[in-house]
Amino acid sequence: MSKQELEVIGQDAACCPGLSAAPLDEVQAADLAKVFKALGDPVRLRLMSMIASRGEAGEVCVCELTPAFDLSQPTISHHLKLLRQAGLIDCERRGTWVYYWVLPGVLERLAAFLTTPHPARASA
Amino acid sequence: MSKQELEVIGQDAACCPGLSAAPLDEVQAADLAKVFKALGDPVRLRLMSMIASRGEAGEVCVCELTPAFDLSQPTISHHLKLLRQAGLIDCERRGTWVYYWVLPGVLERLAAFLTTPHPARASA
Repeated sequence: MSKQELEVIGQDAACCPGLSAAPLDEVQAADLAKVFKALGDPVRLRLMSMIASRGEAGEVCVCELTPAFDLSQPTISHHLKLLRQAGLIDCERRGTWVYYWVLPGVLERLAAFLTTPHPARASA
Repeated sequence: MSKQELEVIGQDAACCPGLSAAPLDEVQAADLAKVFKALGDPVRLRLMSMIASRGEAGEVCVCELTPAFDLSQPTISHHLKLLRQAGLIDCERRGTWVYYWVLPGVLERLAAFLTTPHPARASA
């Protein structure tokens, strides 16, 4: 998972002023739209909730995720890849299976982006 | 704007347990995915930030929104319609122009959905 992708949801607090703070520029909007688009699909949202409900210290084997859907494992893996590319989750292969977890703080940063009325540090 | 659409982001607190609380069912995921999908487009995200940055008491004339984009007014209106259908904004026509505002509390409820680890009322 690249740092660049994580930064779109404000990991370094320099990127995003908050949705209500000021109009986003085109670059900010393009980066952030990828994150929301990743969540803008019912299957990915269910996958995300299955992974997130394990807590940030928890992880889920793909072998537990796939049976919850009437979809092939390659399709599930594709959706998981899109969540990874959006910086929402990460994974590690161990033996036969791949294990997924939510990246620390990612949901909190996304929530802060939605509700922070002013730039977190710009006026400090 | 229908109440049903607002409820998908938890206006009545009965709908959504929080992304990290428990795996979403298919209906919840389908409803919520519409909201995230609405935000998952750079133009709509910029429109949303332009409207939201006026504050919840503020509003924006469509005549102020359109010039910020290299897009036709019908295209902008279509994007605004999708934001409305997702329950994020509402509007009113007055004379020549349509005025848009963010629905009260909608961003806070969306943020709470992303970060609330347990059902808000289910265990009360």
